[in-house]
Amino acid sequence: MDTLNIGGKMLKNRLFIGTGKFGDNRILPEVIKKSGAEVITMAVRRVNLDSKDKIDNILEYIPKDCILLPNTSGARNAEEAIRIARIAKAMGCGNWIKIEIVWDNKYLLPDNEETIKATKILSKEGFVVLPYMNPDLIAGKKLIEAGAQAVMPLGSPIGTNRGIKTEEIIQIMIDELDIPIIVDAGIGRPSDACYAMEMGASAVLVNTAIATSDNPIEMAEAFSMAVKSGRKAYNAKLGKQRKTASPSSPLLGFLSEGDAN
Amino acid sequence: MDTLNIGGKMLKNRLFIGTGKFGDNRILPEVIKKSGAEVITMAVRRVNLDSKDKIDNILEYIPKDCILLPNTSGARNAEEAIRIARIAKAMGCGNWIKIEIVWDNKYLLPDNEETIKATKILSKEGFVVLPYMNPDLIAGKKLIEAGAQAVMPLGSPIGTNRGIKTEEIIQIMIDELDIPIIVDAGIGRPSDACYAMEMGASAVLVNTAIATSDNPIEMAEAFSMAVKSGRKAYNAKLGKQRKTASPSSPLLGFLSEGDAN
Amino acid sequence: MDTLNIGGKMLKNRLFIGTGKFGDNRILPEVIKKSGAEVITMAVRRVNLDSKDKIDNILEYIPKDCILLPNTSGARNAEEAIRIARIAKAMGCGNWIKIEIVWDNKYLLPDNEETIKATKILSKEGFVVLPYMNPDLIAGKKLIEAGAQAVMPLGSPIGTNRGIKTEEIIQIMIDELDIPIIVDAGIGRPSDACYAMEMGASAVLVNTAIATSDNPIEMAEAFSMAVKSGRKAYNAKLGKQRKTASPSSPLLGFLSEGDAN
Amino acid sequence: MDTLNIGGKMLKNRLFIGTGKFGDNRILPEVIKKSGAEVITMAVRRVNLDSKDKIDNILEYIPKDCILLPNTSGARNAEEAIRIARIAKAMGCGNWIKIEIVWDNKYLLPDNEETIKATKILSKEGFVVLPYMNPDLIAGKKLIEAGAQAVMPLGSPIGTNRGIKTEEIIQIMIDELDIPIIVDAGIGRPSDACYAMEMGASAVLVNTAIATSDNPIEMAEAFSMAVKSGRKAYNAKLGKQRKTASPSSPLLGFLSEGDAN
Repeated sequence: MDTLNIGGKMLKNRLFIGTGKFGDNRILPEVIKKSGAEVITMAVRRVNLDSKDKIDNILEYIPKDCILLPNTSGARNAEEAIRIARIAKAMGCGNWIKIEIVWDNKYLLPDNEETIKATKILSKEGFVVLPYMNPDLIAGKKLIEAGAQAVMPLGSPIGTNRGIKTEEIIQIMIDELDIPIIVDAGIGRPSDACYAMEMGASAVLVNTAIATSDNPIEMAEAFSMAVKSGRKAYNAKLGKQRKTASPSSPLLGFLSEGDAN
Repeated sequence: MDTLNIGGKMLKNRLFIGTGKFGDNRILPEVIKKSGAEVITMAVRRVNLDSKDKIDNILEYIPKDCILLPNTSGARNAEEAIRIARIAKAMGCGNWIKIEIVWDNKYLLPDNEETIKATKILSKEGFVVLPYMNPDLIAGKKLIEAGAQAVMPLGSPIGTNRGIKTEEIIQIMIDELDIPIIVDAGIGRPSDACYAMEMGASAVLVNTAIATSDNPIEMAEAFSMAVKSGRKAYNAKLGKQRKTASPSSPLLGFLSEGDAN
Repeated sequence: MDTLNIGGKMLKNRLFIGTGKFGDNRILPEVIKKSGAEVITMAVRRVNLDSKDKIDNILEYIPKDCILLPNTSGARNAEEAIRIARIAKAMGCGNWIKIEIVWDNKYLLPDNEETIKATKILSKEGFVVLPYMNPDLIAGKKLIEAGAQAVMPLGSPIGTNRGIKTEEIIQIMIDELDIPIIVDAGIGRPSDACYAMEMGASAVLVNTAIATSDNPIEMAEAFSMAVKSGRKAYNAKLGKQRKTASPSSPLLGFLSEGDAN
Repeated sequence: MDTLNIGGKMLKNRLFIGTGKFGDNRILPEVIKKSGAEVITMAVRRVNLDSKDKIDNILEYIPKDCILLPNTSGARNAEEAIRIARIAKAMGCGNWIKIEIVWDNKYLLPDNEETIKATKILSKEGFVVLPYMNPDLIAGKKLIEAGAQAVMPLGSPIGTNRGIKTEEIIQIMIDELDIPIIVDAGIGRPSDACYAMEMGASAVLVNTAIATSDNPIEMAEAFSMAVKSGRKAYNAKLGKQRKTASPSSPLLGFLSEGDAN
């Protein structure tokens, strides 16, 4: 079976989803179900265990059999990311962590250098570390050395729905790095997700495109199908592109055997 | 239910497939099954009713409940296309016809003017006419006047797997024409098919990308999922693209309430 | 010398410009001068010979040594285009004519079929005919047969500044047709014009991008340089694209002769 | 006048060129002249002062009034880059240095982290530092802090002629960073260079596309014009893109005042 091994977990579904920006968290269980996602990311900040109102607590809406991927959003350097990761573990969110280190508030682009530092420390502490990163082959190699279990390069800035604008470098990372590449951020359409999988990405993470759709539940299912489709196509191998045409049907000779040129 | 009405038939599946270029026709039934296609195109030329060897006859491999869409490939002008259409009907292929009029052997680009002529005559004779065409808004309007039940603009030359390179004009046709637009030719990847559906195409026709894959049966299923995904996303409405980022997770303030900027 | 022969005129400059949309026609002479354009298009409708106010008359602003390329904008079929062409000639605008037949007011996309008809008649009458057209290889071949001296496929709809979105078909036309291809409409940036020339186009026609710039005179010069640059690169032949890197500088061995891998 | 200030030098020409890969160095003076380049990069490794054969010494072919931009190609970490920079200065190549730190031999993608380290040290030593980098907003901010006088993000891998595939991040860098952005590597066509300038880049560096052209001297001139064109267009401000058409010429009413719709 075509499974994805991350940190010893054998994943069947290659769509990871995020839980931010949903107008009403109560649709989350249905969104997750339709997406088929096994890995769910959420900001540690939003896990409010003390609240009396369970509606405040995102964890209430994530099925127990999902793998939690708490993210360190809000962290502006390695130290803060490390602290958030430890809090997440202490809260019972498990030992997976998506490192997000951002101090650029306009484009939310990550700090690769700090991300490498945090990865090194958290990996040693036994975390399964999945760093969000600016696409960069060399930073990818350093993240592997630092112990990352997968890397998550961005397709375009978070929440923009602009698609995979960084394809050039992501394709090189897929071809050169011996670790799962999960395209994260910017995926705006199912066709983007499908394309990422055709490129050979191991998985994609989608949040905004689902959460801000007119119909998040339907959109979750659309992404699920797109990811499966793209993976299947990758495994079945895509045909080569040609410059000139190649007939699907016999061209000439039917009515005009004699004078075909 | 989200059905597509062409010539009075209510189609549930928006992937049409072609039967050319398969190395071995015996896999066709499985390909068709996995594709879910209800409409199957084949060159009239290849329907060899006289052959003793049933393997020569493409019709043997198409399930009886599919709608046949015989195409006029080999026709170089309206007159030849009309003759081929009539032969198809006489052979028992039904009254659907895909008009393909091509006399450019390098890129197999169609002759819109002759296509309009043939459409006019065949529509009057009671055919359900689906013309293959060079993307062109005005030719599309004329084909509607001529009685076409759908129009089939090309994404890129037949058999090239180059994708939807003519998006600019196809999008205008989708927005402006009150008839199903079926993107035909050039679709090379499931993500292309998914994207066409997201654009608002009513269906896509795929042949080469499935037939020449290492694994046509798997690829047929991949395309089927991609088309369903794209249609679902179109119906659920895609989110808008933004230029700057929009956080999925709360940005700051977790560890640093006091000094957030 | 690298000249472009159209209708017996040997052109040295491959940027044609249009005269519409300029806020103030009095800058036209300077725009034309900086563009270096030898061929200037204007709507016959705007040539108001009767006006007492010379400011109304576009011809007053076009240097006498330019070749006038009156266009038939406003024509909705071949008959109207033919009448406008004849009026232009009678008015003393010469015998060049750009056929523009449009009845779609939203995208201003041309009617290729009517354009072919008008070309046939006007060519026989001795006009040098340059038809504006929807990109279409077969229509291009028919326009050549009809006597066109060049064909003018659109890059994207008139006035959109969207660039050469129809590249796929225009490149095929350049490669296959034995007549000058002049990319017209949609060119929004000098880099678009440069790219068209690198593709092998014989010339480009630019109007909106110059006329609606904050500084039309500077923009005219920018386009002039871009067209010359693209043509020069086409003649000098562009290098091939590679998938992997190729060092410009010696890679290793400077400080590390011994251990270079 | 529109000059570019780098390290106190007021540059008039925004095309920088490289000296690698020329089949015959003796054409270099003419290439440089036609390019108009004021800044010329060359690998320190190739400066062979000891050679008796002047043909070995690249410096012999660079006019004395050009600014030398020696690059550290061959360096695999900050330390090696620093040593090469110091050698270059000692050799009389001036105090400009392009830091190139590469240990990936397939795509020649740079190591941003090491590049930041080298920049910090060399800037303090009084070098005018221009680092070659993987496009990355945050690394760009750190390079500014480290004292870089400009940053040189890659458009695509060195020598590939693939164009500006990293546009998404480079555009953000141009918009956000308060330092000259010089697009380096991958520029394959004059239209790429023109486009970079239209985006707002301060300059471009071109080597392979000129050196490997059939006619490097002509190609140098083509790039020179393209860069000037793109800069001029940037200053004159490009028009906005529209979705629907906007007529350049009056649409209707010429022959049909009465019935225009």
